[in-house]
Amino acid sequence: MCVRRCVITVGELGEFGVVNRITGRLPQSAAVMLGPGDDAALVAAPDGRVVVTTDLLLEGRHFRRDWSGPYDVGRKAAAQNLADVAAMGAAPTALVIGLGIPADLPLTWLDELTDGFREECEAAGASVAGGDVTRCDLVVLGVTALGDLGGRAPVRRDGARPGQVVAVTGRLGHAAAGWALLEAGVTAGSPVLERAVAAHRRPRPPYEEGPRAAELGASAMLDVSDGLLQDLGHVAAASGVRVELDPQAFEVGEPVAAAAKELGADPLEWVLTGGEDHALAAVFPAGTRLPEAWRVVGRVVEGEGVLVYGREMGPGGWDHFR
Amino acid sequence: MCVRRCVITVGELGEFGVVNRITGRLPQSAAVMLGPGDDAALVAAPDGRVVVTTDLLLEGRHFRRDWSGPYDVGRKAAAQNLADVAAMGAAPTALVIGLGIPADLPLTWLDELTDGFREECEAAGASVAGGDVTRCDLVVLGVTALGDLGGRAPVRRDGARPGQVVAVTGRLGHAAAGWALLEAGVTAGSPVLERAVAAHRRPRPPYEEGPRAAELGASAMLDVSDGLLQDLGHVAAASGVRVELDPQAFEVGEPVAAAAKELGADPLEWVLTGGEDHALAAVFPAGTRLPEAWRVVGRVVEGEGVLVYGREMGPGGWDHFR
Repeated sequence: MCVRRCVITVGELGEFGVVNRITGRLPQSAAVMLGPGDDAALVAAPDGRVVVTTDLLLEGRHFRRDWSGPYDVGRKAAAQNLADVAAMGAAPTALVIGLGIPADLPLTWLDELTDGFREECEAAGASVAGGDVTRCDLVVLGVTALGDLGGRAPVRRDGARPGQVVAVTGRLGHAAAGWALLEAGVTAGSPVLERAVAAHRRPRPPYEEGPRAAELGASAMLDVSDGLLQDLGHVAAASGVRVELDPQAFEVGEPVAAAAKELGADPLEWVLTGGEDHALAAVFPAGTRLPEAWRVVGRVVEGEGVLVYGREMGPGGWDHFR
Repeated sequence: MCVRRCVITVGELGEFGVVNRITGRLPQSAAVMLGPGDDAALVAAPDGRVVVTTDLLLEGRHFRRDWSGPYDVGRKAAAQNLADVAAMGAAPTALVIGLGIPADLPLTWLDELTDGFREECEAAGASVAGGDVTRCDLVVLGVTALGDLGGRAPVRRDGARPGQVVAVTGRLGHAAAGWALLEAGVTAGSPVLERAVAAHRRPRPPYEEGPRAAELGASAMLDVSDGLLQDLGHVAAASGVRVELDPQAFEVGEPVAAAAKELGADPLEWVLTGGEDHALAAVFPAGTRLPEAWRVVGRVVEGEGVLVYGREMGPGGWDHFR
């Protein structure tokens, strides 16, 4: 019977206890040929090449423990790396995680974080192949994702050519709307506002659309992590072209519209500049028959930078949008 | 002319400036098919499988900026991951790095850190394929290494069988001796003591011996990171065997002997329990003709745990060695 203190912490479990606790909650997919427990893991790379990307996420900077629960932190940390793999046109295969945690972290927090990593991996067809645990005053996540191109060429940022169309898939502006609601202190409210907050906490990258876009002939693609205008700016700069966007072509999601109404904000601002939804933006040859999941929102022309029809631009171009 | 302040910091350079600064100092090896600058990197995995390992290193816990300069921090952070790859019998191919740095970090510190990563990668035949930079109050390094098995089976921890011999390659006890000198405040002194301190700051893992041991038929292998007794304890436990070590068989390096004399310590203690040299320990079939770089130090028998002849053992076995 627990009388004095009922919260078990990771410090009480010790390093090996923590590692066993985590690995016990992480089944491996078929792509993981050797999982946690040795010097290194072994992951299938049938293509003969492996896509690899890494991110370092810090409590207070990339997530707040008071705004996001551990399950959502795990899903989001996994999602942003797995989405980078998909944005190359590859299928995610595995994640490895360097985990820094305070000794007084409740064990339930660790369990839920692990569950978040597992379930986001499952959504992307991957699994956690290994990791490292160390003590740290803050929660620190060093997340690396691997993926397989299945024989396709990687879809880079520098392949946009004049005459092509720009298309997006996945949600845009939802996470930004949710963040704005949280910042304004509007955390409870209508179900539709809750959906915006949920989108901030847990992105839903359209993983399968990455390899599909590559198969359809996408010549440039990226994960929308910093906002569509800024990210397409990278495509424009790397490709030596100009991207023109039609603001009428975008779909403003119901939670985005509701949050904008609630806060008196411009919903299109969030759609065009909000990051963290991890949508995919890609450039296709004109005339490509795109599946329903993709929406054409602009075109590639000669020039430089990103232009939004009918919008005032600052002197520095797209990055001074407002 | 600089009058008021001559130190340029990473904060003044900004995120893109820092990324460009780092990548400008990092040439890519042939295994890196697509380097930094896109959503993800692309690395050759000719074997059709990829070895992957990750570590999270924190300032204050894994390194001290007053004990180790940035170049050594970079080399050591790279070494400990690359050595894990070699310990599977694989050749390292690439590193990706998540880098957390304070805004007031001098740019020279970042440059030297980058140089350390580059040169340790070169020593292992690998290169830095990509990364992520974020602001953090402490220096945080999330390092992930990839490697290729060249068609060989991975050399795991659970393959030791009674009748086999235990051999080591690389330095043992040097880093521990150097750490003890630093802790005792003996940082300057004879050249031989300086060598121990240098070994603490910069390990020299015998990378090429990993794949070579695999080719020679090693049935278990690991990177000695926590101390030989503790690490061989993992082999014994995973394989269901006992490892017996002959203390007479070990070579006590000159810097280790000199540091022990200086501090009145037992040099064999450092050899058997000191970590961070990233030597390799492996188990071979009896009668295997081993190259000069390897030294037979014991044998595998029925039983459990790790025994050192002629040494007192605590009731808990090897992990209570002293």
